[in-house]
Amino acid sequence: LKGLTQKENGEMWLEEFENNGFKASYKIKEILHTTQSQFQEISILESEMFGKILVLDGIVQTTSLDGHIYNEMISHVPICAHHKPKNVLVIGGGDLGVANELSKYPFIENIDLVEIDALVVESCKTHLKEIAGETTDPRVQALYEDGAAFVKGKKNVYDVVIVDSSDPIGPAEILFHYDFYKDIYESLKEDGLMVCQSQSPIFHMNVLKQSFQNIHQLFSFTRLYTAVVPTYPGGLWSFTLGSKKEFKVKKDILATNTKYINSKILKASFKLPQFLKQEILG
Amino acid sequence: LKGLTQKENGEMWLEEFENNGFKASYKIKEILHTTQSQFQEISILESEMFGKILVLDGIVQTTSLDGHIYNEMISHVPICAHHKPKNVLVIGGGDLGVANELSKYPFIENIDLVEIDALVVESCKTHLKEIAGETTDPRVQALYEDGAAFVKGKKNVYDVVIVDSSDPIGPAEILFHYDFYKDIYESLKEDGLMVCQSQSPIFHMNVLKQSFQNIHQLFSFTRLYTAVVPTYPGGLWSFTLGSKKEFKVKKDILATNTKYINSKILKASFKLPQFLKQEILG
Repeated sequence: LKGLTQKENGEMWLEEFENNGFKASYKIKEILHTTQSQFQEISILESEMFGKILVLDGIVQTTSLDGHIYNEMISHVPICAHHKPKNVLVIGGGDLGVANELSKYPFIENIDLVEIDALVVESCKTHLKEIAGETTDPRVQALYEDGAAFVKGKKNVYDVVIVDSSDPIGPAEILFHYDFYKDIYESLKEDGLMVCQSQSPIFHMNVLKQSFQNIHQLFSFTRLYTAVVPTYPGGLWSFTLGSKKEFKVKKDILATNTKYINSKILKASFKLPQFLKQEILG
Repeated sequence: LKGLTQKENGEMWLEEFENNGFKASYKIKEILHTTQSQFQEISILESEMFGKILVLDGIVQTTSLDGHIYNEMISHVPICAHHKPKNVLVIGGGDLGVANELSKYPFIENIDLVEIDALVVESCKTHLKEIAGETTDPRVQALYEDGAAFVKGKKNVYDVVIVDSSDPIGPAEILFHYDFYKDIYESLKEDGLMVCQSQSPIFHMNVLKQSFQNIHQLFSFTRLYTAVVPTYPGGLWSFTLGSKKEFKVKKDILATNTKYINSKILKASFKLPQFLKQEILG
């Protein structure tokens, strides 16, 4: 398996490099599942400290220890920033963690989940229930297509679009381009909003700024917020929200049963560290 | 050097284990300085991604990339929570980063820095100016003593005490005990307050809770706040503030020239994730 090495003492370690200057290694107790799709190598591993880990082509995507932080932050913030959305599109999100969070809102009527790789969804449904949840919600429509192609040409369809992409290398690279955000803009209703993960302010400031500027060019209201994601490089992670209509972050979290987010964390997440404020606002 | 290994391709990597289930590895370009004190092995290394790194006995203490986040959060929050403190005690803080932050406040008249290991201070003064700063402030009195012994018996002396300790293993272990916090309580004036780093809510919840409960037993007002520290395990880090007098976190940051903290981050840092609120407040 990519990134997995067996040491002389018999221990298995998953080794993940960041820019060839930092390496995070996770002790692995067991390989729970592994398969090769037409897009990537998919594994679910049982680790010593992070519980189960979803790995795509050797890169850690989510863990049962901290995956809920990312999933809650990318889901509940846009839902609560909008006024009770009914039709939501998730691009990516193959681990089903975002769909699981969205299921907590009874007013959502439909959730289109467009994930390029059906085998990721299948793998997580069976072997990563801690993140995927029960996956029995009939409102979730899984569509195994290219997210960028899916959204192109859609007009005035969605209330909220969530871009839950992996890193901007390989199949997800296109999900950081201006044209993709423009297609999302078109697919949204007149009071619609979108959110995407926009990488680490510590290590990927260029990606973050590019994402932010692309969204800022299209949407009338653009805001950045952050959260801690222990297993992502830099720990501090950013999300960019673009809205056609003015929105207030003084909203409350309407769902219960969250582990990380609450109404105060929602508001606090929009308060940016000084260096980030300066980079973004100039 | 402890933790430093040379690979077959000639690369040097610093490897740091967390609970034997996670390993962080930093590519090292150069060993800038190394010495052995009576307490520990001290090194300052030039890394590929984190700039300079201070390492004590193989454990990363601070880096020039992200050290300011921790130093700003443990310094500016208590100073701004207090009403213009004059006499401040720093226990630990041998990298001089906290003293450097405190120097930004003209109303502080005296800063006692009690660090057990003089060689840490000497090393950082010479080789880690990015964190230590100019170190020419005449208000800083460096005292090379055991912090716990120093504070014992002091009565009604300090306005603010900052415990900038390393992890609760080795020489710093005593800095997490009830008796130590009690001595700090006694050393504070009647409107005094203290702050300590209380480890990671993700990986060290037991230490965090013990620290919090110890301080809560002594002080009338106890509050937890958090910040992201990329190079500490878990990324999310906690600080516990104990005050004899009621304090408001609605204060502004009075210093300028900060890279991470600002008035909004100060207030936001006291908003706790749901799981942490539940663990602490029950």
